[in-house]
Amino acid sequence: MKIVDFRSDTITKPTEEMRKAMYEAEVGDDVYGEDPTINKLEELAAEKIGKEAALFVPSGTMGNQLALLTHTERGQEIILEENSHIFMFEVGGLAFLSGLQSKIVKGEDGILNSKVIKEAIRSKNIHFPQTGLICLENTHNMAGGVVTPLNRMEEIFKLAQQHRIPVHLDGARIFNASTYLDCDVKDIAKYCDSVMFCLSKGLCAPVGSILAGDKKFIEKAKKFRKLLGGGMRQAGILAAAGIIALEKMTHRLVKDHENLRKLAFGLDDIKGINIDKDKIQTNILMVNLKDTGYNSDSFVYEMKKEGVLATKIDEHTIRFVTHYHIDEKDIEYTLNVIKRILN
Amino acid sequence: MKIVDFRSDTITKPTEEMRKAMYEAEVGDDVYGEDPTINKLEELAAEKIGKEAALFVPSGTMGNQLALLTHTERGQEIILEENSHIFMFEVGGLAFLSGLQSKIVKGEDGILNSKVIKEAIRSKNIHFPQTGLICLENTHNMAGGVVTPLNRMEEIFKLAQQHRIPVHLDGARIFNASTYLDCDVKDIAKYCDSVMFCLSKGLCAPVGSILAGDKKFIEKAKKFRKLLGGGMRQAGILAAAGIIALEKMTHRLVKDHENLRKLAFGLDDIKGINIDKDKIQTNILMVNLKDTGYNSDSFVYEMKKEGVLATKIDEHTIRFVTHYHIDEKDIEYTLNVIKRILN
Amino acid sequence: MKIVDFRSDTITKPTEEMRKAMYEAEVGDDVYGEDPTINKLEELAAEKIGKEAALFVPSGTMGNQLALLTHTERGQEIILEENSHIFMFEVGGLAFLSGLQSKIVKGEDGILNSKVIKEAIRSKNIHFPQTGLICLENTHNMAGGVVTPLNRMEEIFKLAQQHRIPVHLDGARIFNASTYLDCDVKDIAKYCDSVMFCLSKGLCAPVGSILAGDKKFIEKAKKFRKLLGGGMRQAGILAAAGIIALEKMTHRLVKDHENLRKLAFGLDDIKGINIDKDKIQTNILMVNLKDTGYNSDSFVYEMKKEGVLATKIDEHTIRFVTHYHIDEKDIEYTLNVIKRILN
Amino acid sequence: MKIVDFRSDTITKPTEEMRKAMYEAEVGDDVYGEDPTINKLEELAAEKIGKEAALFVPSGTMGNQLALLTHTERGQEIILEENSHIFMFEVGGLAFLSGLQSKIVKGEDGILNSKVIKEAIRSKNIHFPQTGLICLENTHNMAGGVVTPLNRMEEIFKLAQQHRIPVHLDGARIFNASTYLDCDVKDIAKYCDSVMFCLSKGLCAPVGSILAGDKKFIEKAKKFRKLLGGGMRQAGILAAAGIIALEKMTHRLVKDHENLRKLAFGLDDIKGINIDKDKIQTNILMVNLKDTGYNSDSFVYEMKKEGVLATKIDEHTIRFVTHYHIDEKDIEYTLNVIKRILN
Repeated sequence: MKIVDFRSDTITKPTEEMRKAMYEAEVGDDVYGEDPTINKLEELAAEKIGKEAALFVPSGTMGNQLALLTHTERGQEIILEENSHIFMFEVGGLAFLSGLQSKIVKGEDGILNSKVIKEAIRSKNIHFPQTGLICLENTHNMAGGVVTPLNRMEEIFKLAQQHRIPVHLDGARIFNASTYLDCDVKDIAKYCDSVMFCLSKGLCAPVGSILAGDKKFIEKAKKFRKLLGGGMRQAGILAAAGIIALEKMTHRLVKDHENLRKLAFGLDDIKGINIDKDKIQTNILMVNLKDTGYNSDSFVYEMKKEGVLATKIDEHTIRFVTHYHIDEKDIEYTLNVIKRILN
Repeated sequence: MKIVDFRSDTITKPTEEMRKAMYEAEVGDDVYGEDPTINKLEELAAEKIGKEAALFVPSGTMGNQLALLTHTERGQEIILEENSHIFMFEVGGLAFLSGLQSKIVKGEDGILNSKVIKEAIRSKNIHFPQTGLICLENTHNMAGGVVTPLNRMEEIFKLAQQHRIPVHLDGARIFNASTYLDCDVKDIAKYCDSVMFCLSKGLCAPVGSILAGDKKFIEKAKKFRKLLGGGMRQAGILAAAGIIALEKMTHRLVKDHENLRKLAFGLDDIKGINIDKDKIQTNILMVNLKDTGYNSDSFVYEMKKEGVLATKIDEHTIRFVTHYHIDEKDIEYTLNVIKRILN
Repeated sequence: MKIVDFRSDTITKPTEEMRKAMYEAEVGDDVYGEDPTINKLEELAAEKIGKEAALFVPSGTMGNQLALLTHTERGQEIILEENSHIFMFEVGGLAFLSGLQSKIVKGEDGILNSKVIKEAIRSKNIHFPQTGLICLENTHNMAGGVVTPLNRMEEIFKLAQQHRIPVHLDGARIFNASTYLDCDVKDIAKYCDSVMFCLSKGLCAPVGSILAGDKKFIEKAKKFRKLLGGGMRQAGILAAAGIIALEKMTHRLVKDHENLRKLAFGLDDIKGINIDKDKIQTNILMVNLKDTGYNSDSFVYEMKKEGVLATKIDEHTIRFVTHYHIDEKDIEYTLNVIKRILN
Repeated sequence: MKIVDFRSDTITKPTEEMRKAMYEAEVGDDVYGEDPTINKLEELAAEKIGKEAALFVPSGTMGNQLALLTHTERGQEIILEENSHIFMFEVGGLAFLSGLQSKIVKGEDGILNSKVIKEAIRSKNIHFPQTGLICLENTHNMAGGVVTPLNRMEEIFKLAQQHRIPVHLDGARIFNASTYLDCDVKDIAKYCDSVMFCLSKGLCAPVGSILAGDKKFIEKAKKFRKLLGGGMRQAGILAAAGIIALEKMTHRLVKDHENLRKLAFGLDDIKGINIDKDKIQTNILMVNLKDTGYNSDSFVYEMKKEGVLATKIDEHTIRFVTHYHIDEKDIEYTLNVIKRILN
């Protein structure tokens, strides 16, 4: 049976070109700083994202957690969106690893503004933890791949600078954001002190993410990476695929966005499904099933019988993510499957 | 100058009877379990609150933090009201000491319900921290001394039990709540697994709070108290005042509530001040200054010049708390001072 | 039955003068910094110990743990003697609260030297935690009240300064040390960045210890005290006794030392008991029972039958501590009891 | 210039066979449990080491730290050798991540015995942290690759079981140990509750280690791996090399041991160098330079000029490690270089 797997762009497999690059990768011991392919990737990544330095990490979660460990002191409070990945999906690491209190605030479609953040910043008082970090997420996964506009990034970053609070950007899918905004990723990343972005997900590398910031920040983060057990030896194998991800895979994300658009408009035409068109921006689509008569479990089950995989988010919401392994025909096939189910 | 100090009921000084009891207190080494006055207080407190065992602690903050340490495992998530004392005023201890992620939810006037809590409870997923504790606060300080009704306590406790999640009650002012509800404190405390209440504040003991729960819980909490440095030697000195607080001071809280009522209605008659009468319940009053032309700093300053002290909460809100050292005449004096300022 | 309680000097009860002072104590809310008796005690304590500032804490354990929290960063390593109180008897707080790795080193009779500390200091390496603090203990409890001489304190402090590592002194019984050395406590405390000493123990206050250091250090420690729940309200009650402890009780420690000396020489005359005379310095005596035919449990049991209480340290060692409630006659009585047991 | 790199076996690069396997590896999303190559490796590893379950981790440090996180509760004390890797080289992670107090004890050539461990186990007391784990290291890196004999492993494991304390084995080089003991790795690993061993180091995989234990333990460790950011997506790329490491590379370690033996005996013949022959067991050699007139820095520098790399351990000790990329001729070359330097 044909399988169309919309569960996540994390499932993407390395391309043939990546496999060849890994096969031929020149490697060394990266704990000693001697892996030439890692060094090349980290330089390339820093340059692309517009930061002084970059660090290869085995996962986006580790990249985010390193940022928290590096920016903050234990017992501080951080401000982050209530459905952000760092709060929702990182196993409570912000509290477990960094000992941070989480002041969650509500965004509109995941987008924060400077007003809500200003109100959340703590004043000085012996009873209060200090506000130690503001976290943003662009694109915002749980809001359905929604992009925070540059002016919002800018206004928040300015406010943060006034209060001398650093800003970390969870940019796991920052290339999807820059594709939507039709700008350079640097134009987004300049409104934060540190940024994490993934080489896996839409860019198809098998393993790995990048944490970027200034030199001092990355040097400190590197020691924390060792502490967490993220110091790998001949990691150049993975970096070889990462280089291709950065150099050759970012341009194709526009395809994923087109495919998602087709899926979204196609679904909107089906009775019982209404898509919020403002939120069709990148490669993630949240679909509300309330008016279909199905709950998420049963709908996911019905689709799966026909080879279409999606992720249950809650009782009435399922998520579709487009990526490298999904093409226009898969979208058509999927729309037909769903039409059949709902008739 | 006459001073009327509404800043907090924490400022209350021990009564003459308490001073005598402290002077005569029979003491021993409480780390060895040999202080007879501590032992008597802990038995009395457990009996009053309707729990198996009780522990004397030097502050309400330590009592709450011990509850968190004892109920949870590091890295879990706890659900608590967004303006609760544990989240707002305990220096981030929930994250610093217990490594907990804080899922703050919004109450109506500080009162939570089972629906909002149910939505906040985590399901099982490798990405998720586990929900480890639900915290309630009754009366709710920042909501203006508002009381959570017994049926709300009950519905939340039932939900928690279904999910096998413990409930801790920050009952710093639980005797104010029972006074308002005209019930026994046991009737409130039966809807939680552990409860902290203060002997200082409205009950006038100089130092000390009680943490109560089942025997196993208190035994574990006692070891954490030693770890935090809360194991005191001849603490019976303080316990002697605590016994009087419990035996003789709870009945007089009704007076504080009456005085607050007078203050609130008196203020409501003044132009520019509107009091939400539904929230005049116990001994705390939040006053919104927006329509007076004053901000909090300037209004607090004007009152202070005439000997009336209150606490700034935010830009436009100040807090009055009634207690043992404030009588009817002080209320009248205060109303006159405020009238004069606003004319 | 007459009870002679050598278990610890922590069991000492407040004197009549202390009780009166507590009865009459002027108090205020110390969280607001308004307790005049606390303020007086903290000034007095800072002056006596020769540091800029001092902080009243409910226990020696809290004082030591605050020092660790304030001096170090999580994940650092601290150097301390393998039988020191901070390592042995503080419930693992150094790791639990401060997240510190403990590099324990062996002293001679509890006395460390700069050579062993120098070897323990970490160099810079991505694999290594950083050495963040050196802890000393003077007098050393588990070594039998042994005093670290001033020249040792000085040599260690100089080494620490060269490496920019702070030194904390657990001076729970620093007045016993100064009594033995016949010097001012300032002469000891000048060789450390922070010092904790107890008002309870030999000085008889019911509750409380002092943490002292420079102003910035104490300001930071004060916030950690709040976090741990050590911020107490009308704590002046306890401070009143503390002031008497500092002003009137330090001079009498010489008596405790004389009594211990009598006990030690008396025991040494008894067959089966050999006392290391070099270690008879202050008010603590470790007695080895190996040649008596008794183990600690049975010997403690036999003495208890005649009203003499001591503490089992290990299989063959018991500890005697002299203090305010033990006089010369108690020593004679005790020696007679032990002679009787061993014949 | 010819380079002979004795710094560590961590520098080994993947073999051609490994590169091919990585190129062809079938992969999936391992966070979803869908990477067939990871699944195959974990099953193979569990079977080889004789445990119920196994988990692939990006480094030995992460494997060890996961074991600590999974076995212990925060604030417990663990017993480990004073020069063990977990204490010395893991950035204080035991305290930072797990909040554990480290009770370091001295082994003979790194080998612990049950007596020293028994004395270090804590009894029950409100002042004491609980002993939560015993860590062993076999072979012991800093002792010079020394092997703990099976009877020692057995006696310690029995003691631990009597006290219900789990045992974790840092078996980074367990295949070197089994090669020396001429036994199956299972025969070693049966004397511990969990074991970590490396696929990199002597076995040449580019990245990765295995943590093994019972199913419940590994399930819990897997969630902690996610928390630390060690959950990787298409990790089958790395696992493909790991499978070859386990299936084809363990048998060749005997060669490394022979080469080390030649190096050791050759050095022992050189004036100024004395090798402790009892410690020539596996692939690590510590060389004391005290009688050569060189300190470590200058000797390492002289060797480096001729292409021979070794690691400075302390002022007078350097370390040589043999591995896949060093053959008999390299040993001869090295001996000649050193002879030349010392003449």
